[in-house]
Amino acid sequence: MTDTTITAAYYRGGRKFTVESTEARPPGAGEARIRIAYCGICGTDMHVFHGNMDARVGFERVIGHEMSGVVESVGEGVDNVAVGQKVVVRPLDHCGDCPACRAGHHHICHRLKFLGLDTDGAMQELWTVPAHTLHVLPDDLRLDHAALIEPVAVACHDVRLSGLAPGEDVVVIGGGPIGVLVAMVARAAGGKVLVSEVNPNRLAIAGRLGFDTVNPTEADLVAEVEARTGAKGADVVFEVSGSQAGVDAMTAVAATRGRIVMVAIHAKKPEIDLFRFFWRELRLIGARVYEPEDYDKAIALIAAGGIDADTIITDVSPLSEIQAAFEALDASPTAMKSLIKVGEIA
Amino acid sequence: MTDTTITAAYYRGGRKFTVESTEARPPGAGEARIRIAYCGICGTDMHVFHGNMDARVGFERVIGHEMSGVVESVGEGVDNVAVGQKVVVRPLDHCGDCPACRAGHHHICHRLKFLGLDTDGAMQELWTVPAHTLHVLPDDLRLDHAALIEPVAVACHDVRLSGLAPGEDVVVIGGGPIGVLVAMVARAAGGKVLVSEVNPNRLAIAGRLGFDTVNPTEADLVAEVEARTGAKGADVVFEVSGSQAGVDAMTAVAATRGRIVMVAIHAKKPEIDLFRFFWRELRLIGARVYEPEDYDKAIALIAAGGIDADTIITDVSPLSEIQAAFEALDASPTAMKSLIKVGEIA
Repeated sequence: MTDTTITAAYYRGGRKFTVESTEARPPGAGEARIRIAYCGICGTDMHVFHGNMDARVGFERVIGHEMSGVVESVGEGVDNVAVGQKVVVRPLDHCGDCPACRAGHHHICHRLKFLGLDTDGAMQELWTVPAHTLHVLPDDLRLDHAALIEPVAVACHDVRLSGLAPGEDVVVIGGGPIGVLVAMVARAAGGKVLVSEVNPNRLAIAGRLGFDTVNPTEADLVAEVEARTGAKGADVVFEVSGSQAGVDAMTAVAATRGRIVMVAIHAKKPEIDLFRFFWRELRLIGARVYEPEDYDKAIALIAAGGIDADTIITDVSPLSEIQAAFEALDASPTAMKSLIKVGEIA
Repeated sequence: MTDTTITAAYYRGGRKFTVESTEARPPGAGEARIRIAYCGICGTDMHVFHGNMDARVGFERVIGHEMSGVVESVGEGVDNVAVGQKVVVRPLDHCGDCPACRAGHHHICHRLKFLGLDTDGAMQELWTVPAHTLHVLPDDLRLDHAALIEPVAVACHDVRLSGLAPGEDVVVIGGGPIGVLVAMVARAAGGKVLVSEVNPNRLAIAGRLGFDTVNPTEADLVAEVEARTGAKGADVVFEVSGSQAGVDAMTAVAATRGRIVMVAIHAKKPEIDLFRFFWRELRLIGARVYEPEDYDKAIALIAAGGIDADTIITDVSPLSEIQAAFEALDASPTAMKSLIKVGEIA
């Protein structure tokens, strides 16, 4: 056993992980190797667990991308990070040569590789990544909180693309982990936020986080939004539910010239009220992952205490217990964000 | 018979107009009375003819809004126009007190009155309107061409909201009267325009107007757009077809961060590929009627010869023949814009 013999969790298909020893890959030119502290379980990871992404990830894959860690070693030519620095990985590797990259939209590259799905990820003690994907953290940022940077960056991207201005009325449709983070980032940007959610446990968490909430199966969401806004409607709507009901609600609650950000991934094509788009000159904004500035914003927000990380993180399990952690998260009606503690970092 | 006894065409339901004598209403305070030269038949007027808007317009209504004329008289306090000036009416009367009006979006007022539908319109020799709706025309602008200003203003609004920049790739889905005008305005703004249309007669007209065209029932529209754009896709898409096929095409041909303007009125809710909105960060922009600056732009474009009015105007009939004109337009596969010559103006 060398000092680069590590423990890694492999997705093996059929809702199973195996935890095994392996040799960490040394960093090549332009790469850095990260000692992983924490790795959150993303909704996408849960899709992998459910077998929905087997064709993409295969059965030899280490998944995980919502991570935090410390630079362990660097390859030739790396000068943007130094050994010992706390970092997170922005898990996107672009081709640099497609129409999207040439237009400067690297994060929606036509041949984008998502680290931790298309390549191995962070559910291992040492992770070797392109150094350009790294963001350095403040020394005093807690590494468990830092594991929220990736999902908070998603929310920062969504809120940035919405063009939200202070004082505007916001409705977040869907109060799960991403919805609550979107709500927090929107509130930090000065939005007056209402969260619509059908799950009572999630409603309770959103309420504890200080948000006004509506359960649209029990109250009239449109009437509630009209009452709050003097019949104006919401200036910005985030559709995070991924449901037809959410898509119906998003057009119904939006003000004239309202902006609707499509945060949810709709695998099926829902029916959309295009007449309302015409009638109120609504705008729909597709949003995918994040750009570097969204990571910078997420790091600043978490460092400043703008995200209630201790309420969002509802479970922490060691890497050896990854199987139980996925099963528990899958079965829990109250969990928000589960972290895997991948390694000990002083 | 006084000098204000006029001829007017009334929509009576059941695809029928009657042409009758009536007394013109004198202009009140803040109003002007316009001697109508020409009035085009809009798609909306054809909806009225088909009986689809009976509940809104009733059976005592003079319709028509795509007009040109000359100021005949003005009421008290009117100082923005003078008797004898050539004018067009921007046929929108807003309440001034709803959330949309308070936000400055008068054209999408929650209680908007559309002149010629919600009030009497221009298919009469003298038309009394709020003076704030008038735009003065250059003295040498032909009044038949000026009857195109309203639909050209729709196209100017669509193109302005798209944010089209010179050199960008544009696809117009649907090459009817509005589609062709959108294509012309987009070309005038520097766009590289492809028109997609299924009707061979309309394809031929678009071709005569100098546009590249595709018939998507005979060729692969997506492959054609990719070939023209180096696999990038269209920066701006105008959906003017009002069909599910058009809605499917709009997401398929759009580039990363492409803007899709919803020009068509979809009475039914189509299915929309929201995954593509996410994947390519597309934007959908609802567009309705026009704002004053769109009228200014339309007047300037037509005055400068930027719109091939003589190709667009395929028929001119006198007011006495309005019934036959609607029936002919309804039956014609080749007509683009039919004008009614309402009165003689020197």
